[in-house]
Amino acid sequence: MKAFMDKDFLLNTQAAKTLYHETAEGCPIIDFHCHLSPREIYEDIRYENITQVWLGGDHYKWRLMRSAGVPEKYITGDASDYEKFEKYATVLGKAIGNPLHHWSHLELRRFFGYDGILNQKTAPEVWKLANAKLQSEGYTSRGLIMMSNVDTICTTDDPVDSLEWHEKLAADKTFPVTVLPAWRPDKAMNLEKPTWPDYLKQLEKAAGMEIRSFADLKKALHCRLDFFAAHGCRLSDHALNYVMYAPAADEEVERIFSARMSGTIPGAKEEAAFKFAFMSFMAAEYHQRGWVMQLHYGCRRDNNPTMFKLLGPDTGFDCVDNTAPSTETAAFLGSLEEKNALPKTILYSLNTNDNAAIDSILGCFQNDEAVGRIQHGSAWWFDDHFDGMSDHLKSLANRGYLAGFVGMLTDSRSFLSYPRHEYFRRILCRIFGEWIEDGFFPEDMDTVKEIVSDICYGNAKRYFQFAKK
Amino acid sequence: MKAFMDKDFLLNTQAAKTLYHETAEGCPIIDFHCHLSPREIYEDIRYENITQVWLGGDHYKWRLMRSAGVPEKYITGDASDYEKFEKYATVLGKAIGNPLHHWSHLELRRFFGYDGILNQKTAPEVWKLANAKLQSEGYTSRGLIMMSNVDTICTTDDPVDSLEWHEKLAADKTFPVTVLPAWRPDKAMNLEKPTWPDYLKQLEKAAGMEIRSFADLKKALHCRLDFFAAHGCRLSDHALNYVMYAPAADEEVERIFSARMSGTIPGAKEEAAFKFAFMSFMAAEYHQRGWVMQLHYGCRRDNNPTMFKLLGPDTGFDCVDNTAPSTETAAFLGSLEEKNALPKTILYSLNTNDNAAIDSILGCFQNDEAVGRIQHGSAWWFDDHFDGMSDHLKSLANRGYLAGFVGMLTDSRSFLSYPRHEYFRRILCRIFGEWIEDGFFPEDMDTVKEIVSDICYGNAKRYFQFAKK
Amino acid sequence: MKAFMDKDFLLNTQAAKTLYHETAEGCPIIDFHCHLSPREIYEDIRYENITQVWLGGDHYKWRLMRSAGVPEKYITGDASDYEKFEKYATVLGKAIGNPLHHWSHLELRRFFGYDGILNQKTAPEVWKLANAKLQSEGYTSRGLIMMSNVDTICTTDDPVDSLEWHEKLAADKTFPVTVLPAWRPDKAMNLEKPTWPDYLKQLEKAAGMEIRSFADLKKALHCRLDFFAAHGCRLSDHALNYVMYAPAADEEVERIFSARMSGTIPGAKEEAAFKFAFMSFMAAEYHQRGWVMQLHYGCRRDNNPTMFKLLGPDTGFDCVDNTAPSTETAAFLGSLEEKNALPKTILYSLNTNDNAAIDSILGCFQNDEAVGRIQHGSAWWFDDHFDGMSDHLKSLANRGYLAGFVGMLTDSRSFLSYPRHEYFRRILCRIFGEWIEDGFFPEDMDTVKEIVSDICYGNAKRYFQFAKK
Repeated sequence: MKAFMDKDFLLNTQAAKTLYHETAEGCPIIDFHCHLSPREIYEDIRYENITQVWLGGDHYKWRLMRSAGVPEKYITGDASDYEKFEKYATVLGKAIGNPLHHWSHLELRRFFGYDGILNQKTAPEVWKLANAKLQSEGYTSRGLIMMSNVDTICTTDDPVDSLEWHEKLAADKTFPVTVLPAWRPDKAMNLEKPTWPDYLKQLEKAAGMEIRSFADLKKALHCRLDFFAAHGCRLSDHALNYVMYAPAADEEVERIFSARMSGTIPGAKEEAAFKFAFMSFMAAEYHQRGWVMQLHYGCRRDNNPTMFKLLGPDTGFDCVDNTAPSTETAAFLGSLEEKNALPKTILYSLNTNDNAAIDSILGCFQNDEAVGRIQHGSAWWFDDHFDGMSDHLKSLANRGYLAGFVGMLTDSRSFLSYPRHEYFRRILCRIFGEWIEDGFFPEDMDTVKEIVSDICYGNAKRYFQFAKK
Repeated sequence: MKAFMDKDFLLNTQAAKTLYHETAEGCPIIDFHCHLSPREIYEDIRYENITQVWLGGDHYKWRLMRSAGVPEKYITGDASDYEKFEKYATVLGKAIGNPLHHWSHLELRRFFGYDGILNQKTAPEVWKLANAKLQSEGYTSRGLIMMSNVDTICTTDDPVDSLEWHEKLAADKTFPVTVLPAWRPDKAMNLEKPTWPDYLKQLEKAAGMEIRSFADLKKALHCRLDFFAAHGCRLSDHALNYVMYAPAADEEVERIFSARMSGTIPGAKEEAAFKFAFMSFMAAEYHQRGWVMQLHYGCRRDNNPTMFKLLGPDTGFDCVDNTAPSTETAAFLGSLEEKNALPKTILYSLNTNDNAAIDSILGCFQNDEAVGRIQHGSAWWFDDHFDGMSDHLKSLANRGYLAGFVGMLTDSRSFLSYPRHEYFRRILCRIFGEWIEDGFFPEDMDTVKEIVSDICYGNAKRYFQFAKK
Repeated sequence: MKAFMDKDFLLNTQAAKTLYHETAEGCPIIDFHCHLSPREIYEDIRYENITQVWLGGDHYKWRLMRSAGVPEKYITGDASDYEKFEKYATVLGKAIGNPLHHWSHLELRRFFGYDGILNQKTAPEVWKLANAKLQSEGYTSRGLIMMSNVDTICTTDDPVDSLEWHEKLAADKTFPVTVLPAWRPDKAMNLEKPTWPDYLKQLEKAAGMEIRSFADLKKALHCRLDFFAAHGCRLSDHALNYVMYAPAADEEVERIFSARMSGTIPGAKEEAAFKFAFMSFMAAEYHQRGWVMQLHYGCRRDNNPTMFKLLGPDTGFDCVDNTAPSTETAAFLGSLEEKNALPKTILYSLNTNDNAAIDSILGCFQNDEAVGRIQHGSAWWFDDHFDGMSDHLKSLANRGYLAGFVGMLTDSRSFLSYPRHEYFRRILCRIFGEWIEDGFFPEDMDTVKEIVSDICYGNAKRYFQFAKK
């Protein structure tokens, strides 16, 4: 019987323990995709209590609470912070098998030194302990990052962003962590949205030019890409329903653009043609700059109209979209390669069924531009748990070169999420340990340690080529 | 080496044994979805031999025999009952890995006290032993139910059903088990079928009104819903290809209805529009009554035209339909929620690949109406085995609140199927045991026992709110 | 800790060891689907060095090297044979979890007696050892086959093939292995390809008749089927995007044929109609002759246009196509069954998500024509690894009659691939051993040995009915 979440949590073989404690544990974190606010990092903010830092904006936790029948009052409503915490503790105590049970306890252990179990009974003691810690030295946004051995952070930024907080962070020599912007131009692409024309106005202002055509839009984005590059940006991110292939002539794309500017929302086919042209342009730009293109897809958002009206987006009402034709993903990447315009790319699908198809697509576009030029991004969101990460790692190993994988990222909005890297690393070492003990791979610990170190740190460092602060 | 199917079958840790023997084993069964005949329960029927009770109508067993090359004569043909049993025993002896091997042996152990292994060699002794038991006291339909610690049974009933056998069962105070009808209106929905107009005539009679429009159809169903409610019905069931979203104006639905009444079979798009309108109406009715809506989908039926002509439906010729766009399922539930017409719902897909999508959809519609207001129904039919049930439970745990799950049902036509609840419970306890022994969850046995007890019994009790006999 | 790949590689229970060493290990190989050249067998060719025999045409290895960032020069370019080998050894040394790591080491052990680990450090010693062996007696194409205990080989042959090398092999009494052709008429079906009209000319010549209609095409194929049958052919193979159902009237198919002959490439719908008619014809022919129909689907080929121009097809740029509607597969088989024209069939999808659907489809068409009349072919290509094979075997066991499975095939272009049968057999015995030790199946070793022997050899022998040399 292993104790619950002790120092050897998830490490069920001697080889796993060796790999984790001698190698993985000490690797710095390159958190190349997250949703932290650069302003909150710069301002070194502090939280009043654990509800604010833990439950304030975490839709994973909200969703679990709703599933357990907790009234909305205790989730996003007007209950007191303690009442909310107490409800979460009650639900968590019975959330057997849910990754939040692991994440939350890892966070309590690493940041608050709490080795017990959080549930309804222990809620008062944890509340007291955590809140006391939150008022002590070092428990600020920067402090939490420093505690976590973070080397580099990439936030997620809109092309129109002034990047002023990134500038300030870059100039602040008291904070040793590299914080860089990442380019996320979804608002410029989603022309079917009612807010698109207004967004273009913001982009006009940011780029200092008028946008009257798709050609103009590309010019404006090009200008902003230069601006981001000057701030050290090395990667982009896109949220897509799925990776599309819908080629159309330039004139047709311009026609769709013009029609939209005159108020005509495009049909599904025209929307796809525009988005494909948009993505093709962006990819070529990334390729020229040596940036990495991240594609996150397989998500249907805002499925609950009632709650959307109340709470808006990103509040826990999204689901897996299982429409992801591998033929189109392969055709999109192929069309870029044909024009010598395929950047380093990371594919992430929210649909775990896409693992095998993605891993087979990667192999069609690998070359000596980089180890693992095309990557299968780490298991994500609804798949960010022991089974999801294990499946992802094994699928990648079975069909590709796992030793070249750029590894984990938090994708988080919270300063307490870094233990997700620990979770990933323990799972990675567990799998390797099992393979070694089972005679699947030689007990050549130097080689396996090198692979572990590369996946935890070295591969990302070489792949993204971030300029150090 | 564990012995084959001893008292600790599937229980590979001490924690699992404790959970099963101290908690799960003793929980009463709420079998909220099955295909038993209420008449056969009322009439307390008895079987002549094990072939009649075991092989008479069980297309799972027929399918396995055909796969092993057994001639149809020994399956549904004119071979003697003993010959059929002997053929089944022969195939079963080599059916390594098939759930029928487990189910059949569990049934032999629990109902007939046979601890050996059924195969070609032992067929004669099992035949003798089982048949003797079947003639002894208590081996009737009611007796088999009583032996199985069953609390409540919900059958599957057509809206036109008189529910006379349910009435008689309700009035019979000698039988303590609650037997309730469940509403299955597929025949009223499937307007593309040649038998639909005739069915409407039956419904007219049952509802005591003419049906000349979709509005009339809704009125007639409303009337029958009242009738079912008066007989204690608390849940419905629908067999769908997939969960559709195809909104259309009322006039359009009426037009499709009229055209069909005049003999015009609707096209695919019109069929979807009609069915979506039908389902939207039904769901709102269920919501108003506090009923549960069950949606079974992902099945393509009657794939072998030759055998269909010979044997008709439900004879072992169905397969998985892998068309299940998660976008439409989410949109359907969202459209109901928007009108405040979403009932408690259980989603079951026959396609195991849908697990992750379903579990992510659940979370979009949870609230304090119930713990686990929207449920992911237990692994079913082609997935009703160790791997399928394990995958379902783990997917639900990873993405939702497993502790709120309403648990197992037999979905069976046989009075000998209750050990499937035992099978489920052993798998559940095995998974929890592994999690505890592996340090994934604290060894807090009181909490885990509470969760086990809830999944085996308490959750269903609270969720469905059946009136006790 | 198990040693890496010793004699008990993958055999983690005593039962598995018993099953493998006492039964599976000694079974002859029936390699009923591969891509070996009958000419190279007849000519008993010899290789200069291990790079030629191992890396010369193996796109699995090329793909892995590209994934690890190796320049094309060392893969298909002008680097020396030793440089290429050294690069492969370096990559392989870190290819943890990839099946090539297992396959390559199995091949080194079985053919070259090398018990060490191949990596950058050991590359020189392995190069020397292997090359010396390759020059020694018995290290020819025939010798490598003989070393592997091969009973029967089926190659993959075009309808226009003269089968001259098969004739010579059949006549050569010095070589005891049965080598038979298998019928692969893809080029005759793919009318959308620019090369189709030229191919028809070759077929005209081979069949000695003009082809001016679809009826003519069928006659010509019929004639070539007779020719293949006279050379002992017992099975066919088809590469499809997916298994289609697209019935059309004969006149419509003739119209599509004529239009294509006049240079009009058919649209997607017409293409499907033609191919469905083609497949329906072929299937009926197979049925009449007692042949087996193999359907390989779920692959999108030649995804990298740049590399395709450089290297052509089958060079490592293919991926999984996840379009495989189970409804159409079931409808196709159903339409054949209805006409009493469904041959014994083996379904292989490259998409591992199709396992459950396929296994549910099998069961709809089984009868006493054969044990496992319709088969789910072994995990293949991107799924040909421990996880893929385990998933396939378990899905088949869960939903069908695993004991009737016809087992493994290499699907290979290399004379060194026979250890893939060993790999499969070890996995099979591992799974059975775990089931026995876990109490899932009785420890009735005679029965399980019989099942193992059937899956490794006996089932294929009975299913295909090859005439022995």
